[in-house]
Amino acid sequence: MGRVFLGEPVVLYRKQGGTPVALEDRCCHRQLPLSMGKLEGDELRCGYHGLKFDASGTCVEIPGQSNIPPQARVRAYPVLEKFGWVWIWMGDPAKADPALIPNWWWAEHPDWAFSRPDPIYVRCNYQLISDNVLDVTHLAYVHATSIGASSITEFPATTEREERLVRLTRWILDRPPPPLYRDAGGFEGNVDRWQIVEHVPPCFSVNFAGCKDAGKRIDLMALSAPTPESEKTTHYFFGFVRNFGLGDAAIERVFDVDFVRVFNEDIPVLEAQQRMLDLKPDARKIDLAVDAAPLAARRMLEGFIARET
Amino acid sequence: MGRVFLGEPVVLYRKQGGTPVALEDRCCHRQLPLSMGKLEGDELRCGYHGLKFDASGTCVEIPGQSNIPPQARVRAYPVLEKFGWVWIWMGDPAKADPALIPNWWWAEHPDWAFSRPDPIYVRCNYQLISDNVLDVTHLAYVHATSIGASSITEFPATTEREERLVRLTRWILDRPPPPLYRDAGGFEGNVDRWQIVEHVPPCFSVNFAGCKDAGKRIDLMALSAPTPESEKTTHYFFGFVRNFGLGDAAIERVFDVDFVRVFNEDIPVLEAQQRMLDLKPDARKIDLAVDAAPLAARRMLEGFIARET
Amino acid sequence: MGRVFLGEPVVLYRKQGGTPVALEDRCCHRQLPLSMGKLEGDELRCGYHGLKFDASGTCVEIPGQSNIPPQARVRAYPVLEKFGWVWIWMGDPAKADPALIPNWWWAEHPDWAFSRPDPIYVRCNYQLISDNVLDVTHLAYVHATSIGASSITEFPATTEREERLVRLTRWILDRPPPPLYRDAGGFEGNVDRWQIVEHVPPCFSVNFAGCKDAGKRIDLMALSAPTPESEKTTHYFFGFVRNFGLGDAAIERVFDVDFVRVFNEDIPVLEAQQRMLDLKPDARKIDLAVDAAPLAARRMLEGFIARET
Repeated sequence: MGRVFLGEPVVLYRKQGGTPVALEDRCCHRQLPLSMGKLEGDELRCGYHGLKFDASGTCVEIPGQSNIPPQARVRAYPVLEKFGWVWIWMGDPAKADPALIPNWWWAEHPDWAFSRPDPIYVRCNYQLISDNVLDVTHLAYVHATSIGASSITEFPATTEREERLVRLTRWILDRPPPPLYRDAGGFEGNVDRWQIVEHVPPCFSVNFAGCKDAGKRIDLMALSAPTPESEKTTHYFFGFVRNFGLGDAAIERVFDVDFVRVFNEDIPVLEAQQRMLDLKPDARKIDLAVDAAPLAARRMLEGFIARET
Repeated sequence: MGRVFLGEPVVLYRKQGGTPVALEDRCCHRQLPLSMGKLEGDELRCGYHGLKFDASGTCVEIPGQSNIPPQARVRAYPVLEKFGWVWIWMGDPAKADPALIPNWWWAEHPDWAFSRPDPIYVRCNYQLISDNVLDVTHLAYVHATSIGASSITEFPATTEREERLVRLTRWILDRPPPPLYRDAGGFEGNVDRWQIVEHVPPCFSVNFAGCKDAGKRIDLMALSAPTPESEKTTHYFFGFVRNFGLGDAAIERVFDVDFVRVFNEDIPVLEAQQRMLDLKPDARKIDLAVDAAPLAARRMLEGFIARET
Repeated sequence: MGRVFLGEPVVLYRKQGGTPVALEDRCCHRQLPLSMGKLEGDELRCGYHGLKFDASGTCVEIPGQSNIPPQARVRAYPVLEKFGWVWIWMGDPAKADPALIPNWWWAEHPDWAFSRPDPIYVRCNYQLISDNVLDVTHLAYVHATSIGASSITEFPATTEREERLVRLTRWILDRPPPPLYRDAGGFEGNVDRWQIVEHVPPCFSVNFAGCKDAGKRIDLMALSAPTPESEKTTHYFFGFVRNFGLGDAAIERVFDVDFVRVFNEDIPVLEAQQRMLDLKPDARKIDLAVDAAPLAARRMLEGFIARET
């Protein structure tokens, strides 16, 4: 499978044992994408002149030539399969650190169900998606007919900054649960609900939601991992975990179908923002109270980038 | 309705009383086009975070925030509905002057019929349209099978320049009227005909046509108001007024259908010119006698622009 | 017929006697492509204002104007019809030299059949096509299921450089003929086969192929004349000549259908190379032994260009 990440062409395949491999999707000889070639065991052969590369990106065969020059290699990207997704490190391989992968353990835990729809291809910069995820005010407008709630501003939200985390928190106390929660958790009276977003630079977010009363509690999280293709296009990976309704087809459908529709409501908004930014990149804009968390995330990322360079 | 004029996004709506409003089609907060929002009475609410703007472009509500910063506003463009069209002033609002709208009073007068087809979206610079309108020689070639006349050069045309007007005039004296005129006016012998184009910078033209004999006279005018979207695309607004055949379905059809087809004959020409200009912007070109009026119009416009800047 | 060659718009037509003419496809007056006009005898009239040009590019009539200024002319390109194709010289007309047209006499000789499929429009630089034609190693990979042979590297290839020619030669001695050759030539035992590519700058190649035994010999050549439209797009003209199977419908079909399919197998490869070059023009690349001939051709062309400028 060939994809472009951060402007770099990447070919993804699995070894016979299943281990994922990510190589530069451009033969070092005459630039054909290796994704147009074919797998031979754990190795990948270019479809133009037959150069064969192993999983480290080293060329191991040049048809019609016995010596293989040391520069005959393509870049190999560290990858790791975890929490139901393959994670790729696009930077200096020496700095790849599995500990930087967000700990989304629910996705692999038997007490939790993981809904993982197809990623959405969005024509916008990935940071517009992080802004969107870190902002629960837009629910009332973009998602007015689906999950929107008009009472969102009744309880204030707080923004916290940690070394490598921005957290937005809102508690809605002693109120009736929304129908999905009431039915799923069997709540009979009022509940306390939360909307918490934890964002880790550069682009990983978990939206925690759920509710509880004195005796019961249900949890669901939306996981967001927008993966930049270019400055203006993004593969938007997302999914949902929950600890209720496991094996319940109706609830499964809520997450596999209804919530995907909710995420799709954001796409025209995100793409229109990008079009407006393209039309006039330096158009005046103002920041509001609801931007505290998205701005904190952008500044945290800028800080990381500044320290790197 | 969202449109782009001169590279600026504009949202157009009507107040409940019908008055047209034109605002910047880009929320001052996070750049969503306001045309993706919804009208609430005379005000427009953004579809992303719910900021509400009044017809002056002032933000009058920010959900979840009591104070509204003074910079929370979008640009408002002066607009005026007149002669069946909405006219917008894209420049400094203080300089908007209704007197600059060309006086196309026939469009609103009961003795005249006004045919107003849908504007045509043309992939060319608006000045190529003004060139086209100010040039009646092309009728013989572009419109050979519709309104073209081979005898166009029998009578010379003159070009006059006033302070804010270029006028091209040709009289065709003592000749048989074309069938449309003959039937519409009931002429029995020869007539005098005229083709007069009055062009007002930056882009408004009236093509006067008609004929008369000792006793009768009929008039028709083509009104052109090409409205630039970008340097290379234009919303071509046009229409026809006439003082004959009012209520006559056959004549109405001539203007609503046949003349629209004539205007559409110009579109491939205009777009091919633009493609050639894009391919080689500095290609050599020569001017001919027939270019006197279009060149006068271009120079007049250049003069206005130079004085402004 | 209007086409773009080397970024220049060209209109092609035939005089009444059949002689081909190539003129600048852009009226010197207002840039309309003359290919949107109409032929009047041996002359071409612009479809906008009716300027008429003769086959030398000279304007011979301006409607409504008696004097014709000397600058009223479009560029005329030397053309010559030869070997079943029309050849155009895009440079200084004084330097046009029919002797520079490659001598593909088989295309016009009665002992040879000439198959001449429609040119293919390829979204790549023309030099990628020359690289491809001068490289027979790719047969084993790109054309694995059609004409590819796994034994290609058993016999070495040599590269020769002449003043205005690069030649790649490989002989495959004393081996069974492939089925097409065996059936067409009636060979019963082993044969000697050849693969010879002669490339003449800037972009003309002949791929000689065929086989012989002590008594018989069959020849076929693929002729390639990729014609650049722009830096990144090419009209790929190609054809095949052969001295066997004349009038044999089955063999004709091999060349008109099967070999065209083979050429089409290269198109996705060529266009993917161009996309990768666009994505990162300065991506690292290495050269291999099989690149000797393509590199020699590129260097020879660079030499010609350097001497010209």
